[in-house]
Amino acid sequence: MKADARARLADARVARLATVTAEGSPHLVPCCFVLVGDTVYSAVDGKPKTTLALRRLANIAAHPRASLLVDHYDDDWSTLWWVRVDAAARVVADPGERELALERLTAKYPQYVRTPPPGDVLALDITRWRMWP
Amino acid sequence: MKADARARLADARVARLATVTAEGSPHLVPCCFVLVGDTVYSAVDGKPKTTLALRRLANIAAHPRASLLVDHYDDDWSTLWWVRVDAAARVVADPGERELALERLTAKYPQYVRTPPPGDVLALDITRWRMWP
Repeated sequence: MKADARARLADARVARLATVTAEGSPHLVPCCFVLVGDTVYSAVDGKPKTTLALRRLANIAAHPRASLLVDHYDDDWSTLWWVRVDAAARVVADPGERELALERLTAKYPQYVRTPPPGDVLALDITRWRMWP
Repeated sequence: MKADARARLADARVARLATVTAEGSPHLVPCCFVLVGDTVYSAVDGKPKTTLALRRLANIAAHPRASLLVDHYDDDWSTLWWVRVDAAARVVADPGERELALERLTAKYPQYVRTPPPGDVLALDITRWRMWP
């Protein structure tokens, strides 16, 4: 199972990231990401959503638990699937790890070649895999 | 803004629902849904994911806050958008409201005609709209 889950997660172009606010409410954003080993990296990019980017970082400072979902939807419901990872979230502090994460993100998303993400890089260290069906 | 957000939410075929577990961790599942006024309805269907369906219901019993996201991804990042609603979540108890919700769900998803969802219906009473860009 995990090999399938890993391939589906690694290949997905977009995921949805859930964190919990300091007040205990769920917070949800779509994000680009790359899977490296058992860690998911995601860059807080330069688009005009600064407040939301900060929210994501404030949330993981308060509650370092995150959940990341990739899924396939089609009106043929026999083809549906999803993969979810629960993780411990942190902002990458180590310059070498940050460089690796940005390299892998840029290899997956050529969009980053022209405009490298200027902000922080989130790391999600996976603690649990779930897939359906 | 809200008219655009409403149309995008109403038209989306799949959304992602975030809740918070009793232990304070985020929980995330894709779901089908229908927007009626300022309430989102989603059925807990009969697929073999009973544990997860129960999890969703246990979560909202412990923490009645939910967040629901619809988004558009394309490798042309100039076309990206998302709409998110934060909501108070509840299981529909009123038989008339349940009937209405199932009618609207079935009108949106013909898949439900053959196999009506046998389980509970979740209601998310929207308290906040957010959209990007």
